[in-house]
Amino acid sequence: MALLQLEVQNGDARAGRLFTPHGEVETPAFMPVGTQGAVKALTPELIRETGTHMILANTYHLHLRPGSGIIAELGGLHRFMNWPGPILTDSGGFQIYSLARLCRLDDEGVVFQSHIDGSTHRLTPERAMEIQAQLGADIVMALDECTPYPCEYSAAAAAVERTTRWAARCRAAQRRPDQALFGIVQGSVYPQLREQSAKALVAMDFPGYALGGLSVGEGRERMCAMLEATVPLLPSDRPRYLMGVGTPADFILAVERGIDLFDCVVPTRTARNATLYTSRGRLNLRNAQYVRDAGPLDPDCACPTCRQYSRAYLRHLYVAKEILASILGTLHNVAFFQNIMARIRSAIRTGTWAQLKEEVLAVYGACDEHASAGWDL
Amino acid sequence: MALLQLEVQNGDARAGRLFTPHGEVETPAFMPVGTQGAVKALTPELIRETGTHMILANTYHLHLRPGSGIIAELGGLHRFMNWPGPILTDSGGFQIYSLARLCRLDDEGVVFQSHIDGSTHRLTPERAMEIQAQLGADIVMALDECTPYPCEYSAAAAAVERTTRWAARCRAAQRRPDQALFGIVQGSVYPQLREQSAKALVAMDFPGYALGGLSVGEGRERMCAMLEATVPLLPSDRPRYLMGVGTPADFILAVERGIDLFDCVVPTRTARNATLYTSRGRLNLRNAQYVRDAGPLDPDCACPTCRQYSRAYLRHLYVAKEILASILGTLHNVAFFQNIMARIRSAIRTGTWAQLKEEVLAVYGACDEHASAGWDL
Repeated sequence: MALLQLEVQNGDARAGRLFTPHGEVETPAFMPVGTQGAVKALTPELIRETGTHMILANTYHLHLRPGSGIIAELGGLHRFMNWPGPILTDSGGFQIYSLARLCRLDDEGVVFQSHIDGSTHRLTPERAMEIQAQLGADIVMALDECTPYPCEYSAAAAAVERTTRWAARCRAAQRRPDQALFGIVQGSVYPQLREQSAKALVAMDFPGYALGGLSVGEGRERMCAMLEATVPLLPSDRPRYLMGVGTPADFILAVERGIDLFDCVVPTRTARNATLYTSRGRLNLRNAQYVRDAGPLDPDCACPTCRQYSRAYLRHLYVAKEILASILGTLHNVAFFQNIMARIRSAIRTGTWAQLKEEVLAVYGACDEHASAGWDL
Repeated sequence: MALLQLEVQNGDARAGRLFTPHGEVETPAFMPVGTQGAVKALTPELIRETGTHMILANTYHLHLRPGSGIIAELGGLHRFMNWPGPILTDSGGFQIYSLARLCRLDDEGVVFQSHIDGSTHRLTPERAMEIQAQLGADIVMALDECTPYPCEYSAAAAAVERTTRWAARCRAAQRRPDQALFGIVQGSVYPQLREQSAKALVAMDFPGYALGGLSVGEGRERMCAMLEATVPLLPSDRPRYLMGVGTPADFILAVERGIDLFDCVVPTRTARNATLYTSRGRLNLRNAQYVRDAGPLDPDCACPTCRQYSRAYLRHLYVAKEILASILGTLHNVAFFQNIMARIRSAIRTGTWAQLKEEVLAVYGACDEHASAGWDL
């Protein structure tokens, strides 16, 4: 069975179905982030109520705590966290470069100190595959070298070369046939490097491809340019995953450039900070203007939060620092993101893309929030 | 329709049914505490899954934030917090004496400063009734003077006299026939004062009676002595509510002395601190011994947490400070308390009280935790 079954193509936008050992996912799809083996503030039942079918978990965090060996002993990540649906794990690379203290980086691998207790750890492409095999996600990622932004051409070129060598080692080290391994295209904001990276990975014939190192401050225009430089080089029958992206406007721009999969901490993290997405724009619910507002958070949303609670109550919960604020806010924000994604799929199928694009960009096109990829703490 | 319908009496223990405008409650009953209009870390759907039928909310907190007038405008507390079942509100007195800064206390009422912003507020018996009428709970409480523990006889006697005068004013100020007003027996640890307080209140013919000022450090023996001095003086056809109590052992001791209603912050507060109640005693889930424990939190419990998660996962969530730890822990602890209460009701009906008592006291009889009554922050 193919991992991805494309059903409709509309320009470069594609709608289809991703098959995994833990179920199907309609694409384009958005994965909420369950950094430590839990999507913050949601039970699996509530995750399901948002319309989510697939989630992401962070290998770096789960490796450090509780440890991938323990999760394997307990039956793997799906069983550990009671999420029976598809899971994708990243390789841990991004967090090592951005969250841990990096001690050494060479061709063999990377040595870093844990952000939790300062303990020293070594990660190689082979070890990244072993850890992800223990976690047991449906889709796993090759270890890459992530460059910071901005990054000089020469450093970005060296990182692409190392990422390519590591991708080959990951491919060789893969042991579980039930896990689909994706290669990660790097190359910072340099089209030639993106091309070089994509071609090298495609030659290794991965079942799927990710675009890494974007949504790190380069801006929407450069992000789109990198998609345009990369996506046409990827085989059309394989899923394409834009890591760490994004917001509603990002989804529109990336889907019409051929992206199928997204993950981002934005809906969960902003919800805990009282920032809620609605069909008319973002609201900060701590604002005093909502103190007597009997209306729903988003009159166009059918999620449990919008069906059952007033803005005034939600504002009260945020101001009173009730945990229930994070629960109900996260439930809505993730449902809102999934609803945008459902409308994206529907617009591709019904040929109403231009209309949806105009609508989403009118509300969120000027919203410059650029999410940093990868974890939700 | 009578507020309380007694169905079985077994010694002084009673099993029956409490009727309210928002539904029936089997008694003896335990009310989780929703201090600020939310039971911490639970949605109403999850509260319902614990077997809870009635909750308590704190008038002091809701009066200060968001304000009872706003809650009234938004349709009352049931609608505001999306809890369609019965609610009891306290009068606010206990918090004024223990959480706020008390500025003046005289026969007219009490002046205090908010613990939130230091603003000055005045509460009188009439105002306590007005605020509770705005909140719209099914059962409301008369304003009382709570003495600290320990308390000299003369001070306790003066507080009883004032509490009696205020109870009469509350009775006279009550305007909503759909709310049942309970008088509160005070008297510290002095049997004569408890008697005097009970008799004075019974003469005013309240639809229910509460015992206040217990579980404040006096110990189980004195608590039981006060129940024995008070309960026989209360009319048997009216519900009896022991405020701020308690733990499983407290329930046993109080139910066999004729108590029908309880509220306590213990299950919710301890759950957020990784202390979980089980049929074999309390556990601290942060303990390293659970790191690989694949078993359920409590093998004798059928709550969603025990059905779906291992101790190892729950420990991970607590150690990683995930909000989901508080959600799943609170869900279990409240379900555990409700399950004890269900077994209490069943033991009264089936004549197996001695057996249940022995079982609960064997596990929890030596557990000396004495909960402070009244709010969960």
